[in-house]
Amino acid sequence: MGHDPVNEQPLELGLFLSERVDATEGRRIDECARQAGIRLRRYTATQPPADPALIHAAFFSRELYEGSSLRRPGPASNAFFQVIDAAPNLKWLHVCSSGLDLPQYQPCLARGVTITPSSGTTAKPIAQTVTAAVLAHSRGFLHWLAAQQQRAWLPLTGSLKPRDIDDQQVVVLGAGPLGMEIGRLLSAVGFQCSVVRRRVVPTAHFGRCLSLAELDAALPQCDWLILALPLTPETEGLIDARRLALLPPHARVVNVGRGEIVDEAALVDALKHGRIAGAYLDTFIQEPLPESSPLWGLPNVWLTPHNSSASTGHEQRVIESFIKELKRWLQSDATL
Amino acid sequence: MGHDPVNEQPLELGLFLSERVDATEGRRIDECARQAGIRLRRYTATQPPADPALIHAAFFSRELYEGSSLRRPGPASNAFFQVIDAAPNLKWLHVCSSGLDLPQYQPCLARGVTITPSSGTTAKPIAQTVTAAVLAHSRGFLHWLAAQQQRAWLPLTGSLKPRDIDDQQVVVLGAGPLGMEIGRLLSAVGFQCSVVRRRVVPTAHFGRCLSLAELDAALPQCDWLILALPLTPETEGLIDARRLALLPPHARVVNVGRGEIVDEAALVDALKHGRIAGAYLDTFIQEPLPESSPLWGLPNVWLTPHNSSASTGHEQRVIESFIKELKRWLQSDATL
Repeated sequence: MGHDPVNEQPLELGLFLSERVDATEGRRIDECARQAGIRLRRYTATQPPADPALIHAAFFSRELYEGSSLRRPGPASNAFFQVIDAAPNLKWLHVCSSGLDLPQYQPCLARGVTITPSSGTTAKPIAQTVTAAVLAHSRGFLHWLAAQQQRAWLPLTGSLKPRDIDDQQVVVLGAGPLGMEIGRLLSAVGFQCSVVRRRVVPTAHFGRCLSLAELDAALPQCDWLILALPLTPETEGLIDARRLALLPPHARVVNVGRGEIVDEAALVDALKHGRIAGAYLDTFIQEPLPESSPLWGLPNVWLTPHNSSASTGHEQRVIESFIKELKRWLQSDATL
Repeated sequence: MGHDPVNEQPLELGLFLSERVDATEGRRIDECARQAGIRLRRYTATQPPADPALIHAAFFSRELYEGSSLRRPGPASNAFFQVIDAAPNLKWLHVCSSGLDLPQYQPCLARGVTITPSSGTTAKPIAQTVTAAVLAHSRGFLHWLAAQQQRAWLPLTGSLKPRDIDDQQVVVLGAGPLGMEIGRLLSAVGFQCSVVRRRVVPTAHFGRCLSLAELDAALPQCDWLILALPLTPETEGLIDARRLALLPPHARVVNVGRGEIVDEAALVDALKHGRIAGAYLDTFIQEPLPESSPLWGLPNVWLTPHNSSASTGHEQRVIESFIKELKRWLQSDATL
């Protein structure tokens, strides 16, 4: 491992990364390589390799994503992928996102580069954002904030009182780090939480675990349907007009997975006509959401610009995820 | 106990209550009396006693409060207190509120009637409302909702990113059922929580317990100052201009105690000039809050009309609190 089998000289591997990460993490990265007995050379846009064939690994860190939207890479992303897509020996790419469906990853995926996502690095802030929206809608803030704008003292009384949280059923689709953290927070607040996942096994923080086949039967009792799934051929269009129609009129929908999981036109229609009570959406079929989308103006919808994970610590959590994967790569796959 | 000491006939005690509670809970109340060996007669506005001297106990249930505001009793409240304030033998009054500072209670208090509050019945819904507001402000919803109104896709990036919840310090004033539940929820979400209370003892859900004397030293590190205190001579004006000035500019204030605990004019001034970052307020010195109050229009303030406890289960929780106190009264104090 780590030696040229012919002349017993240590191989040199090349890692392409941003200048910022090179500056702050260079020493840690070198130490990881030293401990693995690998000679690793760091390259950046300002210190590029003499030959793109010298790049074997790359790290698409969080600040390189800024200026991008989900389906439209920004300038820093384009500059980065221009280099690594031309690196014939690239074996491994670590990316800042949790999903691998971004368009800039597709050339690497197509030619068999291993891409590791920063799984779980956004779970905490996104789950906190979801909890904020779920609680705010459940407790009555849509009414209260509208009254405040009119300087009107209008308490929720009588039949307008919000239903007790303890009596509300949440169904979370997806049992990855995000779905689990959403279940943890909403259970702690008092909601009755069920999870829909492939493997039906007792799942911490969830009172019930359901198979996808059991979803339709659960929808009529559902107060909150929360989508925390990746986009795959199986999940695309999963929440279609038929499933939306199974929800009761007091139900609300959260989507922090991918826009394509829901039939967006059917969702708008259900919200507009009060067939469901509201929604919190962070992700859309077209991003940025076009100004013409009716979603912007629906009074029972809160939307955020694919930004529910925004938090000061995010960049560093992505770096920690990279370092963990780097150690694994150096110790096992680097010289295979 | 429960017997006339002279002729050994059981005494008859009179309980005055609303028609609604009489209808739904009458049988349970009778059963409590039977178990205690007390003859108890129920009176209502439509089945009044022949003589007001026949009333010994009364229950000011939640629906009798509707139409009232904190300092201005409504018609149902007035009708109820008109009866019991004229009942010379009234010994015990159970009330739906947690505080005993409402004006309609003062004549009873002044003549030595024992008043028991419905402590803790609002702790859960109020703590959920507080958690909604604290999380929504912390995560960036003030920015996102303003952007939504303008149909503008404006993610929080770079230096605008919200600070990690895990790095934020919450200071809760008050360790009653409400303060404790707020600590439980905000700790579960990830905030670092301290409690300020009279008895400095290790307190579940709080990393630190501080005395009031230590408050000033904690304020400069405080991200959220949460007031969950009753109004007493000690707490009135506790958060004055001097203490507000000790908070850092990114701090926010929550008041679910009583308006008088904060210097409202100083709070408005600090919010207006960005010396603190925001507030969520459910209670005010004057309620209903006058239309002229500058608080209505401050963009970094969420306010609710003394309504943070609103929830369908509230009325029944107050009834359960009454039944508990009724049992205690029947078994101990009823015939003293």
